[in-house]
Amino acid sequence: MSESKTPFTPISTIGEFKLIDRIAEGIECVHSSTIKGIGDDAAVIHTPLHQVITTDLLIEGIHFDLMYTPLKHLGYKAVVVNLSDVFAMNAQPKQILVSLALSNRFSVEAVDELYEGIKAACKKYNVDLIGGDTTASPKGLTICITAIGEAKKEKIVYRNSAKEGDLLVVSGDLGAAYIGLQLLEREKQIFIENPNVKTDLKGHDYTVGRQLKPEARMDIIELLEKFNILPTSMIDISDGLSSEILHICQQSNVGCVLHEEYVPIDPNTYNTALTFNIDPINCALSGGEDYELLFTIRPEDASKIKNHPDLSIIGEIIDANLGVKLHSKGDNYYDLISMGWDNLDADK
Amino acid sequence: MSESKTPFTPISTIGEFKLIDRIAEGIECVHSSTIKGIGDDAAVIHTPLHQVITTDLLIEGIHFDLMYTPLKHLGYKAVVVNLSDVFAMNAQPKQILVSLALSNRFSVEAVDELYEGIKAACKKYNVDLIGGDTTASPKGLTICITAIGEAKKEKIVYRNSAKEGDLLVVSGDLGAAYIGLQLLEREKQIFIENPNVKTDLKGHDYTVGRQLKPEARMDIIELLEKFNILPTSMIDISDGLSSEILHICQQSNVGCVLHEEYVPIDPNTYNTALTFNIDPINCALSGGEDYELLFTIRPEDASKIKNHPDLSIIGEIIDANLGVKLHSKGDNYYDLISMGWDNLDADK
Repeated sequence: MSESKTPFTPISTIGEFKLIDRIAEGIECVHSSTIKGIGDDAAVIHTPLHQVITTDLLIEGIHFDLMYTPLKHLGYKAVVVNLSDVFAMNAQPKQILVSLALSNRFSVEAVDELYEGIKAACKKYNVDLIGGDTTASPKGLTICITAIGEAKKEKIVYRNSAKEGDLLVVSGDLGAAYIGLQLLEREKQIFIENPNVKTDLKGHDYTVGRQLKPEARMDIIELLEKFNILPTSMIDISDGLSSEILHICQQSNVGCVLHEEYVPIDPNTYNTALTFNIDPINCALSGGEDYELLFTIRPEDASKIKNHPDLSIIGEIIDANLGVKLHSKGDNYYDLISMGWDNLDADK
Repeated sequence: MSESKTPFTPISTIGEFKLIDRIAEGIECVHSSTIKGIGDDAAVIHTPLHQVITTDLLIEGIHFDLMYTPLKHLGYKAVVVNLSDVFAMNAQPKQILVSLALSNRFSVEAVDELYEGIKAACKKYNVDLIGGDTTASPKGLTICITAIGEAKKEKIVYRNSAKEGDLLVVSGDLGAAYIGLQLLEREKQIFIENPNVKTDLKGHDYTVGRQLKPEARMDIIELLEKFNILPTSMIDISDGLSSEILHICQQSNVGCVLHEEYVPIDPNTYNTALTFNIDPINCALSGGEDYELLFTIRPEDASKIKNHPDLSIIGEIIDANLGVKLHSKGDNYYDLISMGWDNLDADK
């Protein structure tokens, strides 16, 4: 939360075309399906495989706060949230297009920093940056990323194909990104009230990291391939576990029992939630931004993943008439309701 | 420029998911390459052809002014500007993804109106709406559209393949959208000063229409196919003729002579430019937003298009060392410079 000491070159001094040249510098496309990247009216791609395509808008003041979000991390995260959708289809991301709207508060150096993160994510996830758009904004920063992935037709996994008797599985742990956000917001308030108080996020690297620089679960897609498991349905967790379970159930026309005791929550997330007087399970159910994968598998595949540290079996798919239930630690059954933060409720 | 009388249902009363259901209602995907549209983590597409992909951000206060832009026209235009890029690759658009960020100033009815225009453009240009993102915005409206087109590999036309001796051709006429914008801005000022004065845009339907509801030149792509002409290079005119000629010349490593006398300018554009004390040629060179196609052809193809009312041969490609020149009506040669409005110069 300190003022940047880097130089400030207004973008207007170099103009849109030179800025694009600067962004394009050093970009190499590695995939055979990328025929033409940045530099024409459109990029050109070609693959014999099926493609998945997804897009996400990130808006300053809604999705991120630059008071505590380094631009490099923001660029990285903007790519990751899109790739997470590609993995949720059981596909491999290959290309992205990046559009930016920038107010004159942003310098050439700020764009460089943002692209450092974007390019780092491209490198990590082996994705070609093939195009986009760069424009002015009257206020704030907007990032719109479109990601394209590839998969064999028979490998693509939808939300609408879970079947009664399937097991519900989630990767990693949940709720940490939400707790990270609470910590960052608390420190922001302290800083606003007294800029001389040093931020105290010691011991919270994990939760804060999950908020600021999440990863998409490419490793889980590879693991499922290795274990020869084709999920019967899959979705990524961006809005919270409840909301995503409800999507799968609604689209597959099935019910579900989610067992609270099996929902994976990291100890630091758990304990910090308590200090905020939040029930940790609610962080998992409704926190969102976990970018973990939620999927269903045939019961006969259960033995392949049992005891895997990165995968938890958290429930079963049941008949639609039985509803979508949370089986609590206290052995009660509640209707699972979507409390995912609905961006459009933001009253600003 | 009158207050809307339609009801105002806040988006927060229905929420993001219901809004998406509402948008998705009645959408039918017609193309065989669209495997899965709205409703999963990503859309799924598949084609044996090559694909072109392009994206554009439209920001309120930069690219449009809702004081004089009907939302339906805006939705239509937002699609068209992307399809224009697809046609500029000599490809046929097949799918679009639409992302919106909306402040709470926008009602459910406003979103309906915007999508009416988006869907009208999809119908007109035979394009499937396959996905997108919808989110809140702290201020104003942002639209990000990604368009995907298809073409045989050998039919795709790039910017970098113009050759010495080729002829430079442009479709339609230029500068009208810029004049339309000047007229709308003038009426806006009059309205601000005195809301009781009636707007007077009589006789300016063409120029105002070119600004508010442009079309992309699908017909020209079909015409070229019919005439069996494969352009040697092509680009669409979004920033102004000068800027686009310079792109082709720079990327093809050639020079060009543009003959002022052959640049097609509509009479109403011409005369209205004079009333604004603007040299009409400057509207064509630097006005932008024409969404016409600029391309180069082999000289042997010239006879096929000669005297076609929608196509004008406006120059020749020459050696790079001779530069990029405007041959004026007064028989002088000037260096052509890019005066295209550089969005990033907007100092807001």
